[in-house]
Amino acid sequence: MADTGPAEPVAVDTADAGPTVAGLGEAGLLARILPRLAGAPALLGPGDDAAVVAAPDGRFVVSVDTLVQDQDFRLEWPNGYRTTGFDVGWKSAAQNLSDINAMGAVATALVMSLTLPAHTPVAWVESLADGYAAAVRTLGADRCALAGGDLGAGSELAVTAAATGSLEGRAAVVRSGARPGDTLAVCGVLGAAAAGLALLESPVPYATLGEAERALVARQARPLPPLAAGPEAARAGARAMLDLSDGLVRDAGRMAAASGCGIDLEAAALAEDAAALAGAGTATGVPPLLWVLSGGEDHGLLAAFPPGTPLPEGFRRVGAVVEASVVEAAGAGAAGAAAPVRVDGRPAAEALARLHGQRPGYDHFGG
Amino acid sequence: MADTGPAEPVAVDTADAGPTVAGLGEAGLLARILPRLAGAPALLGPGDDAAVVAAPDGRFVVSVDTLVQDQDFRLEWPNGYRTTGFDVGWKSAAQNLSDINAMGAVATALVMSLTLPAHTPVAWVESLADGYAAAVRTLGADRCALAGGDLGAGSELAVTAAATGSLEGRAAVVRSGARPGDTLAVCGVLGAAAAGLALLESPVPYATLGEAERALVARQARPLPPLAAGPEAARAGARAMLDLSDGLVRDAGRMAAASGCGIDLEAAALAEDAAALAGAGTATGVPPLLWVLSGGEDHGLLAAFPPGTPLPEGFRRVGAVVEASVVEAAGAGAAGAAAPVRVDGRPAAEALARLHGQRPGYDHFGG
Repeated sequence: MADTGPAEPVAVDTADAGPTVAGLGEAGLLARILPRLAGAPALLGPGDDAAVVAAPDGRFVVSVDTLVQDQDFRLEWPNGYRTTGFDVGWKSAAQNLSDINAMGAVATALVMSLTLPAHTPVAWVESLADGYAAAVRTLGADRCALAGGDLGAGSELAVTAAATGSLEGRAAVVRSGARPGDTLAVCGVLGAAAAGLALLESPVPYATLGEAERALVARQARPLPPLAAGPEAARAGARAMLDLSDGLVRDAGRMAAASGCGIDLEAAALAEDAAALAGAGTATGVPPLLWVLSGGEDHGLLAAFPPGTPLPEGFRRVGAVVEASVVEAAGAGAAGAAAPVRVDGRPAAEALARLHGQRPGYDHFGG
Repeated sequence: MADTGPAEPVAVDTADAGPTVAGLGEAGLLARILPRLAGAPALLGPGDDAAVVAAPDGRFVVSVDTLVQDQDFRLEWPNGYRTTGFDVGWKSAAQNLSDINAMGAVATALVMSLTLPAHTPVAWVESLADGYAAAVRTLGADRCALAGGDLGAGSELAVTAAATGSLEGRAAVVRSGARPGDTLAVCGVLGAAAAGLALLESPVPYATLGEAERALVARQARPLPPLAAGPEAARAGARAMLDLSDGLVRDAGRMAAASGCGIDLEAAALAEDAAALAGAGTATGVPPLLWVLSGGEDHGLLAAFPPGTPLPEGFRRVGAVVEASVVEAAGAGAAGAAAPVRVDGRPAAEALARLHGQRPGYDHFGG
């Protein structure tokens, strides 16, 4: 979840935006949305009380995630960027598809529940539907149906999607399977979405940003989960995996805690990630390594592979799984069992505190 | 969706309610919720990016629905009733399980996404979790896992659940399968939830209501979808079915429109339903037949059975499916193709308008 901080609620711009949700009504709105939800066909698609989806191996994975206005996105950001319906639809699809990916599964369906203030322009909702469809298509979720959903009113915009997927006969890759000696690897960018968030929250106008910085804003607004990589990691023997939604250190801590292990991150392996964010760091005054270690919403993958496993395409080593006792000895578990993670042999909390310019023990996440 | 009308937002009562969501944090809140989510075991339950659920016949049904504070429920009603977390969890489970039921399927999993204001008492959220678990248990969803979900912040309470189900090898019962000559039948109560809503919105204090009226409030707060009846109707050969969520006339209109037919409702078959609501009608000044014909949220089933089919237990005849041309000749389609429904041979809109004491053509639902 993006910490967008306190802000006055901002209404969707209704100037010249045509009819609103209230004016069109539920049936009229559905008639506008449904044709835009192109995707793979479900066995039974929108129009009934539930959709029917194939589960060829007799199982399916299912997940659900919500994006709420002024919590997970702002409609208007301090730097002047206006979040489009397309952005929100894309991000909702991407964050849900990423959960399926992290199990080693292939997405089979998305169903969406939209909570829309009455004054929301119909055009904004059409753009939202386009964002769902474009994400599914662009991210390569070729088997994913946009299978139906629900419309309702509310005082703030919120979109929830539930995603389902097929394990194709494989075991699910859980977060608790890591073992000491495993190679820790990531797929996808680290810190880009957080750098984009910092740019959105900075006073530097979006219109004055260069291409590289706009690309970081795009990673915050429309994340790019590497959807082929989850099933590929499963085939390659990944023992543990999760979606990098809350930052490398925090998500590594979750894998470590669930697996009863410690995790050693290697700063040298993260240097290129940080270097790629140097411009945004200069623009905002944030040390880029902080984004790389603690920035969320990139929706890449963190995976543990048995020692010696050739890493699948797109994965790169960022550290190793170690005995829990090793990190405990270094004091990395002192802040709680949820964070048994070291960076270059020192507690990750120290590295984060140093980057924050604050004392050791500072809890970046507030709990 | 309950038309709860305009109201000032009401916060959950925090007096003596103990710690709040903000005080406990996400991990702490999960630790409180997860033990309460008793249900059937999933193949893989909460704790990973997605749950894994069995789909023995190689398919599954999936649906999603949201309840939003001050749209779908009020925390404090005009009659003094305070909506509990238990109510909201129960209702969210019930409305989603009902969608699965209406396909003729057996529920296999619920995943929940909770949007909680920071000041929400932890005890309220625990009660919410209890409501989900109690609904699954009490409604007989013996195979339904409470398989996971998502927590997030927002300025208003909202809960979304996605439900999945198994068709057990049967075809899904869609709303488009009705044919002229079919018997139209319902299972479950009609109008009770709407009568309960009217009582909640009336100035007559909840504390002064009798047992019968309190039971109607309970049907609004904690609906009782007849979960065994959906699969039983499918086995009995139901050709079309849907969840009675928006009122008999409106939902019959949907079945008729999807099936390309008309529907004749028989008022005599609804007399007992209306009689059961007489006390609430007297208390609120609403003719009970209006609730029976147009009240939503009962979450019973409306089904069309081939002529001569013995109706399964719990179903009772309320009318017949007829040729579309029959209702068109009666003018029942004049208000739009979505409402080709007659009551005793006259357009349903006329009956509703008469009950409203308003002119023919009045659109109760505003679109």
